[in-house]
Amino acid sequence: MLVTLDEIRAAAKNLAGVAVRTPLLPAPWAGPDFAVKAESLQVIGAFKIRGAYHALATLPDAERARGVAASSSGNHAQAVAYAARSFGVPAVIVIPEGAAPGKVAATRALGAEVVRVPPADRDTAAAAIAADRGLALVPPYDDARVIAGQGTVGLEIVEDWPDVDVVLVPVSGGGLISGVAAAVKALRPSARVFGVEPALAADTAESLRRGEPVFWPAERTYRTIADALRASSPGRLPWEHIQAYVDDVLTVTEDEIRAAMRRLATDARLVAEPAGAVATAAHLFHGDALPPGRRVAVLSGGNVAPALLAEILAADPADPADPAGPADRADPG
Amino acid sequence: MLVTLDEIRAAAKNLAGVAVRTPLLPAPWAGPDFAVKAESLQVIGAFKIRGAYHALATLPDAERARGVAASSSGNHAQAVAYAARSFGVPAVIVIPEGAAPGKVAATRALGAEVVRVPPADRDTAAAAIAADRGLALVPPYDDARVIAGQGTVGLEIVEDWPDVDVVLVPVSGGGLISGVAAAVKALRPSARVFGVEPALAADTAESLRRGEPVFWPAERTYRTIADALRASSPGRLPWEHIQAYVDDVLTVTEDEIRAAMRRLATDARLVAEPAGAVATAAHLFHGDALPPGRRVAVLSGGNVAPALLAEILAADPADPADPAGPADRADPG
Repeated sequence: MLVTLDEIRAAAKNLAGVAVRTPLLPAPWAGPDFAVKAESLQVIGAFKIRGAYHALATLPDAERARGVAASSSGNHAQAVAYAARSFGVPAVIVIPEGAAPGKVAATRALGAEVVRVPPADRDTAAAAIAADRGLALVPPYDDARVIAGQGTVGLEIVEDWPDVDVVLVPVSGGGLISGVAAAVKALRPSARVFGVEPALAADTAESLRRGEPVFWPAERTYRTIADALRASSPGRLPWEHIQAYVDDVLTVTEDEIRAAMRRLATDARLVAEPAGAVATAAHLFHGDALPPGRRVAVLSGGNVAPALLAEILAADPADPADPAGPADRADPG
Repeated sequence: MLVTLDEIRAAAKNLAGVAVRTPLLPAPWAGPDFAVKAESLQVIGAFKIRGAYHALATLPDAERARGVAASSSGNHAQAVAYAARSFGVPAVIVIPEGAAPGKVAATRALGAEVVRVPPADRDTAAAAIAADRGLALVPPYDDARVIAGQGTVGLEIVEDWPDVDVVLVPVSGGGLISGVAAAVKALRPSARVFGVEPALAADTAESLRRGEPVFWPAERTYRTIADALRASSPGRLPWEHIQAYVDDVLTVTEDEIRAAMRRLATDARLVAEPAGAVATAAHLFHGDALPPGRRVAVLSGGNVAPALLAEILAADPADPADPAGPADRADPG
């Protein structure tokens, strides 16, 4: 049932030259043993390209040639569109009405056909289109191929820091943390893997407490600024991985997410979307609740509206521990 | 006289595990054969750590143990302070009065002693302090060791893209482009290396036209937003390298610099300071004046005041060719 290290290694082979081998960046501004895995530096701005591309790569040639379908208005939409274009096959992406026009345009710019449906119909519409047209459906997280692809993030972390002790990973549907935890625990069993969720979208944290998946309606999860972490519950296959491999799931506040976005921009010169900043927020503001040692935060993506990032940068930082916020300089030296 | 490939390779050995091996990031949003060398991802936010650390590494042990001195209120100040701390030796940094308090604090936070002097006295003060206290002076660019260190940027570019055709490099005192051009021309003689300056600080471009170094007073160079590119003329040793290796120096406008900063933040998720964005600006807005082929822009640094970055992000982009500017998303997919 669980994705194996061999499957993740096979994904890494498929992704060579396609996914950016992202740097594990030391971040001494946040502590001596802390580093950020910058998945925001993928061409589509998020880790999602790993799972989507690997899923397409493992399809039989004849099946892939007919094309693929997916449902998303977020990073998965662009990931599937980008992967399909790389293989030269058609992609149909179901994007719910109400999604941002810029996101629709970006998906179309990658050559995908975009189908708009009412939000409630998105998943059934994608499945129906796939069945009608003979397309292969690429799920965002509840899929062993997708989990194996995302797991290459974990492989790279242990390659770069073989003695890593703690890995912090954002959690939504759970595809990323499933793959990362499977890789990290196989290669470095003593390392601990923690999920991080916004307190306003803490369905997986609550699921772990209860011992079974719980469902948070959209009215609840849509309160968080972290738009990429609004899943209502962990996916079926991710839930198996989370139970097997994840030590715990922490939560962070909206203010902590904003502060982490600001620190990442000023001190690591990285643009993080809110979802991308939650793991760093957990380190900065809940580090005392974590085991000691070498700690990595996965910065999962950087697709943030410029106006929101501007608002966060313009705010006077409430955090007095922000001496390294760069100020105006006036010399060529 | 000119720095050799062997000297640059020796610098690369010294810098292993110290400087971040920065990624050469494909940037398809700006063309199919364009990539950004993200030196903003160095721990101090700029390439300067390469030259400063290598300069300290090549000092005789006894000399280095007495400590080092430098004059800067910019990225070089933090680079020398960081390198000195790495070696456990004292650093005295002369920072002119009027420099930003945040920059002074950041240099002190790295353990350096900061000496404030009137701006006109900065270089003489640093030399006098070095002589009085027996410290080794680390110049920002007019130094073969510093040029060799910065040249490792060029080594890495050719390692990652052996068939690179055009390399665009910001120019101030000229240390970075000297090292990069020496490395690139040695390894790939057919490649062309271009400098980029703000039109408001185009002392090196004018020097090349005239065939001799010209001097632009601070009243002129200080008009540009690119605070790290306000040198008054190319350094003596850099000028030799520029004449030998650099194909031409282009200029960009202030609006082009701002637009490139915005695109780098939204489409590459990279925080660039104004100086760091000039090479990308040359590609985006003056690409027709450049030879065809695989093109790299060096993003030299990301130490920008949060308020300035916020202002640039909040501006409605005048550039209608900005479809990929990420917008709000509202799904977990």
